[in-house]
Amino acid sequence: MGKKHSMQLMEIEEFILKSEGEWSSMRSGHSIAFKQFEEVVSTIKITLLNKNSIKVNKFLQESSYKVEDILMPFEIEWEGESNWDQNNNSFSGKSLLIPIANSEIILRSSGYAENIKAISKYSFLSDGTIKLVTTYEHTVSEERIWFIHKNVRCRSSLIRGINKDLILQTSFASEVRKINE
Amino acid sequence: MGKKHSMQLMEIEEFILKSEGEWSSMRSGHSIAFKQFEEVVSTIKITLLNKNSIKVNKFLQESSYKVEDILMPFEIEWEGESNWDQNNNSFSGKSLLIPIANSEIILRSSGYAENIKAISKYSFLSDGTIKLVTTYEHTVSEERIWFIHKNVRCRSSLIRGINKDLILQTSFASEVRKINE
Repeated sequence: MGKKHSMQLMEIEEFILKSEGEWSSMRSGHSIAFKQFEEVVSTIKITLLNKNSIKVNKFLQESSYKVEDILMPFEIEWEGESNWDQNNNSFSGKSLLIPIANSEIILRSSGYAENIKAISKYSFLSDGTIKLVTTYEHTVSEERIWFIHKNVRCRSSLIRGINKDLILQTSFASEVRKINE
Repeated sequence: MGKKHSMQLMEIEEFILKSEGEWSSMRSGHSIAFKQFEEVVSTIKITLLNKNSIKVNKFLQESSYKVEDILMPFEIEWEGESNWDQNNNSFSGKSLLIPIANSEIILRSSGYAENIKAISKYSFLSDGTIKLVTTYEHTVSEERIWFIHKNVRCRSSLIRGINKDLILQTSFASEVRKINE
């Protein structure tokens, strides 16, 4: 990391640093069309990665960006259970996220709405809430994440059709930092 | 309503006008300490009131404000069922809300966290999301409401202790406009 960045962090870097760690998440999904609730309990782990790590470099080789273009890459891992489908379903996964400097985009190795590589556009609201918009082939996901305490994050999201009028699902997660890992 | 207001609406008035109508709500509550989910389905009706109506005047008589001080009073009525306590519990209620001109407060005949008269302070984020903070005797509620479509509102809230470190509950509602009332 260059001297400039160690002196003055970008807003996105501050956000990533605050998010680093292990979180216990309660998430509720609302299927708008069917008026169905989903409840998900999971553990989310957010880890900073070295810019020169093999993972990051492998991903960059498949992109049009170089290591000089990127800020603070990180990985999100999740593991949990959903009550969807009556049965309790276990799931887990991980995603590599790479913010690009001097732009407002994050490269993702797998996306939220569809499990493929994706690019998220982000912006910050006046109170520090981050908004992420990711366009997939058939859907668009819009997420917002904000801290209500240094150890509690809220995350709301919606998945809509490319046609803006069709909202498929909203969801909301309360994420509490695991203190004694 | 004076000429100035009919020509140029205040941000809060625009928000109230967009919210007027009947909404079908799915709400999820997350009890942070006990990791419990609550699911609530309800109907919410938001009605504009005349500044000179008996209801509004009666409320103002018990306050330090006059009819000249107020903007666009409205009433919220709700009726629904919660799955809290294993049993399905029906509930209903209503609240009168009166925004005060040249300030950022709304008088409420009954509050969200505690069923007593309350004053909410509000502000708008850069994307039009309204944030409402209401301080009660033992708790503080923070709500944010935003439109993801002209017919879909999202509403998140948290209830915390007066001591900022204790977060009791978060919740999230997806509210879809009922088109054919």
